[in-house]
Amino acid sequence: MGVYTDLIREARELHPDIAGVSETETAEGQCRISRIAVETEEAARALDKPVGVYVTLESAALIDGLEPDMEDTVKALTGELSRLLPEKPAAKLLVVGLGNRNVTPDALGPRTADGVFVTRHIRAHLPEVAPEGMREVAVFQPGVLGTTGVETVEIIRGLVDTVQPDALLCIDALAARRAERIASSIQLNNSGIRPGSGIGNTRDGLTQHALGIPVVAMGVPLVVYASTVVADVVSALAERSDAEGAAALEPKIREIVDERYGPMIVTPKEIDTLLHRASALLSHSINRALHAGYYDEIHALCN
Amino acid sequence: MGVYTDLIREARELHPDIAGVSETETAEGQCRISRIAVETEEAARALDKPVGVYVTLESAALIDGLEPDMEDTVKALTGELSRLLPEKPAAKLLVVGLGNRNVTPDALGPRTADGVFVTRHIRAHLPEVAPEGMREVAVFQPGVLGTTGVETVEIIRGLVDTVQPDALLCIDALAARRAERIASSIQLNNSGIRPGSGIGNTRDGLTQHALGIPVVAMGVPLVVYASTVVADVVSALAERSDAEGAAALEPKIREIVDERYGPMIVTPKEIDTLLHRASALLSHSINRALHAGYYDEIHALCN
Amino acid sequence: MGVYTDLIREARELHPDIAGVSETETAEGQCRISRIAVETEEAARALDKPVGVYVTLESAALIDGLEPDMEDTVKALTGELSRLLPEKPAAKLLVVGLGNRNVTPDALGPRTADGVFVTRHIRAHLPEVAPEGMREVAVFQPGVLGTTGVETVEIIRGLVDTVQPDALLCIDALAARRAERIASSIQLNNSGIRPGSGIGNTRDGLTQHALGIPVVAMGVPLVVYASTVVADVVSALAERSDAEGAAALEPKIREIVDERYGPMIVTPKEIDTLLHRASALLSHSINRALHAGYYDEIHALCN
Amino acid sequence: MGVYTDLIREARELHPDIAGVSETETAEGQCRISRIAVETEEAARALDKPVGVYVTLESAALIDGLEPDMEDTVKALTGELSRLLPEKPAAKLLVVGLGNRNVTPDALGPRTADGVFVTRHIRAHLPEVAPEGMREVAVFQPGVLGTTGVETVEIIRGLVDTVQPDALLCIDALAARRAERIASSIQLNNSGIRPGSGIGNTRDGLTQHALGIPVVAMGVPLVVYASTVVADVVSALAERSDAEGAAALEPKIREIVDERYGPMIVTPKEIDTLLHRASALLSHSINRALHAGYYDEIHALCN
Repeated sequence: MGVYTDLIREARELHPDIAGVSETETAEGQCRISRIAVETEEAARALDKPVGVYVTLESAALIDGLEPDMEDTVKALTGELSRLLPEKPAAKLLVVGLGNRNVTPDALGPRTADGVFVTRHIRAHLPEVAPEGMREVAVFQPGVLGTTGVETVEIIRGLVDTVQPDALLCIDALAARRAERIASSIQLNNSGIRPGSGIGNTRDGLTQHALGIPVVAMGVPLVVYASTVVADVVSALAERSDAEGAAALEPKIREIVDERYGPMIVTPKEIDTLLHRASALLSHSINRALHAGYYDEIHALCN
Repeated sequence: MGVYTDLIREARELHPDIAGVSETETAEGQCRISRIAVETEEAARALDKPVGVYVTLESAALIDGLEPDMEDTVKALTGELSRLLPEKPAAKLLVVGLGNRNVTPDALGPRTADGVFVTRHIRAHLPEVAPEGMREVAVFQPGVLGTTGVETVEIIRGLVDTVQPDALLCIDALAARRAERIASSIQLNNSGIRPGSGIGNTRDGLTQHALGIPVVAMGVPLVVYASTVVADVVSALAERSDAEGAAALEPKIREIVDERYGPMIVTPKEIDTLLHRASALLSHSINRALHAGYYDEIHALCN
Repeated sequence: MGVYTDLIREARELHPDIAGVSETETAEGQCRISRIAVETEEAARALDKPVGVYVTLESAALIDGLEPDMEDTVKALTGELSRLLPEKPAAKLLVVGLGNRNVTPDALGPRTADGVFVTRHIRAHLPEVAPEGMREVAVFQPGVLGTTGVETVEIIRGLVDTVQPDALLCIDALAARRAERIASSIQLNNSGIRPGSGIGNTRDGLTQHALGIPVVAMGVPLVVYASTVVADVVSALAERSDAEGAAALEPKIREIVDERYGPMIVTPKEIDTLLHRASALLSHSINRALHAGYYDEIHALCN
Repeated sequence: MGVYTDLIREARELHPDIAGVSETETAEGQCRISRIAVETEEAARALDKPVGVYVTLESAALIDGLEPDMEDTVKALTGELSRLLPEKPAAKLLVVGLGNRNVTPDALGPRTADGVFVTRHIRAHLPEVAPEGMREVAVFQPGVLGTTGVETVEIIRGLVDTVQPDALLCIDALAARRAERIASSIQLNNSGIRPGSGIGNTRDGLTQHALGIPVVAMGVPLVVYASTVVADVVSALAERSDAEGAAALEPKIREIVDERYGPMIVTPKEIDTLLHRASALLSHSINRALHAGYYDEIHALCN
């Protein structure tokens, strides 16, 4: 009934008993890290998430902004991102900030991309300042279908042809099932991404299979779909009161919500602050992970 | 149960039978115009809207963007605004764009203010180009409490002292009760405004009584509160199915929604397009209304 | 001595007597139109402008903003643009806004692109609303080398491969030789463009020869290079006073300016207003030219 | 001959021998600190800078972005700012970001203000989270005359009445005489500010005398006036070649420049990067200075 989530942990909550999924948990200070592997196509279908590894970092840092927690989260995120990227030293990277810059809850990709250090041109144009062993990073904000007229997937395939990176890193805002998850976690995966899925459109995906290079996706939940909100309320209702009464009302509720709220999103009023924190955390961690050996030099050049 | 609306027409729907309210309807082409007068304090309390005149222009123009409808709406809005403003020729005006520019559904005030012609300084600084009979207009975007640390009402009171206008025109995004009302109407009133009320905070108001000058408020519904969405669904449910069953569930639903979605807003994904159209329509109509006799000259100077 | 101009008319002033150039002048109301054809490679080298047709529309509209002049300019620009584009009905177009959105005098391309109607996706995604005979237009803002790490020319070649348009339309801010030309004209040409040339970097170009499709470039002068300013002053000095004295000082002046002001630009303080007018004029004229037969319908869909 | 500078050090270079000025120099790591006291009205007139203390921090940090230098500069700036502000513990502060956000080289004030922590409302609205001893800071971006119609000085006087701070801190972009000074220093003073002076308009000032509270001004040179560029070149010319020849040409040059480049500014093409670094450095140092005892807590709340 209209429940949609981009979060692997929520998908698992909805289907706790399926086979073909393994999970481990660790922590980095205040930041809890869960690694879920979707191992079979059957599990992938059940969860509506492709086969691959999904890392979730949970931390109150994005919501309450507390500095020591934020540092734990940066450290954890830097580590996890390094692990998911190709082992090849100095692999060339294409970073893509997905989403619509002009809609605050959909602007995580572009805003993060603003802060990612661009280095691909430095060796050619400013060889004297290029740090030794510098990784080449190109960064794009491809826009959305409505602002370009072209499917984001098509554009990114073209960029991959042009830039010839060793791996692709995509950042996008995610949709959660439960409002309390908004801005409470960061999700990374190596199974690719379907741009636009986060805002309700399902189009072809960006995967290692399709592009021939590893694809890492990274995001933070910033919205819930209106349809999901109502489904969530009905489901909570069933738990707290007359489950049968709630079940009987379900088809009617679905009809009303689809009619009235189908294409709408739910987001906190203070979404600008959450976006600011989330994009700063992501771009900082990306820069740390990509330029580990010479961070200070590249910070001076690119910041 | 958490239903909130800034729209007088929705307030009336919820309380159709109260006394002390009169209404007339007219049309300008495709644009329907309703004028509702809240005439008694009792009616004001029942509707949660201060005594005054509320004009609502309904038009599909903002949603479907069709040009002839848009022209009708501009014409109607220009006329209604002129009627609400002081009759004194060339009255000095302070225009204030309320809301948070960084949250798309709350940015109507600032974005409209961007397009309003600023003329207060022209006579003093560029007397040779000032059109004869030019009205002096000052424009501000006071920000929100979170970005300034000062209540918007305090700031505007200070600006009124500084600028000494004959009237105040405030623009703000509005909250509707029903999603279908989003971007479907423009509301004007002469009863003042409580900045922040549109995003769930009620603070002291800007009224003729408080400021000593006429206050006209203008807005377009661009959000629904999450709590209102669920209330709306429950109420529709009662109409379509077992009213008693729905009523019995109401207290539980209220509890769940307050817990989880209290401070959230619901808005269409294409809010950037709606905001663009609404702010262009408002600023254009304001400029037409304020500078009727010499529009072309002032357009050349200020656009 | 450091004089650089993107304007064909200024290039001609500097080399008035070369062969292989023809010019005609017409007018549309207050807007004067000059068409200069650079006909031989020799003329192209002398003028530092590739072989092709250059149309210059001169009008005070952008500077003084007067409405009737603005209408003449829109009409003239719409006509000239239509003439330069492929005659094939409904040819598919890729529109590219060049330059750096974050540097006001370099933001003409991105700001114009913001206002160009995007239609390429409409037939596939919303066939029921697509006007009959609708031209498919895709729009990009590729950023600059410093924000992407990739040469703009490379990106656009990739986009042309992806989008497969029948023609390319590029918009970019131009550099003038004389400050008085800033915002006083619009230049169109069919000889391609070298992105970055307008800000002092010469890189490979976007031409029909390189891309296999017609390329139309469009721009407005918004800056003068600092080095050009001083050269201009020295040249005016020679006219007004002791020509020999000025000539003798020239090498010294060149040395001083190169040392101190090499990479700097000169721009009016009110560049934000000029940018606003120029980008609105360009995007409006582009939309008029590209969607002549069904402008109202597409305006409703896309604005 | 059209030489204008906001920098006390450049003003002194032009008038090295006047009495009533004292200077001391210190350093904080790579950051050199000069303190110049303009002690008499006569010196103030000669230098065109009001009586007061001017602190200049010179550092390559803003230009080359090197991290250890940046830290030295933050430390020095934090210290100097603390020294200039009232000694009263937890004095209430009004921070004002002057200038035009839409013109990149004039956007230092607004962009710095974006990053200053706003705390004035916390004690009243969120008392449970307010750090003990928290200083109340209100922040405004008053716009410019062209966007409001009101002199910035009038607006700020009104804000001071409304907010009742113990001191005023103003941030504004500065004009230098020499291009090499752009982004190479930060200037602080306690003698007030004339908003708009940095872009060529002289209006009434914001001073302790006028407002009754201490006023600290803070800025970074980001432009040179076009007229100053030419004057600078002529003056360098006189040093390097025939001084008499240069002197003879001076009146002609002045005439030409005034005619053609009077109201123009000169700025580096990479002004977006310089602005980004300068505003981040200023806002970070302001936050450090204002909330010394509880920086981590307030960072979590406000960032």
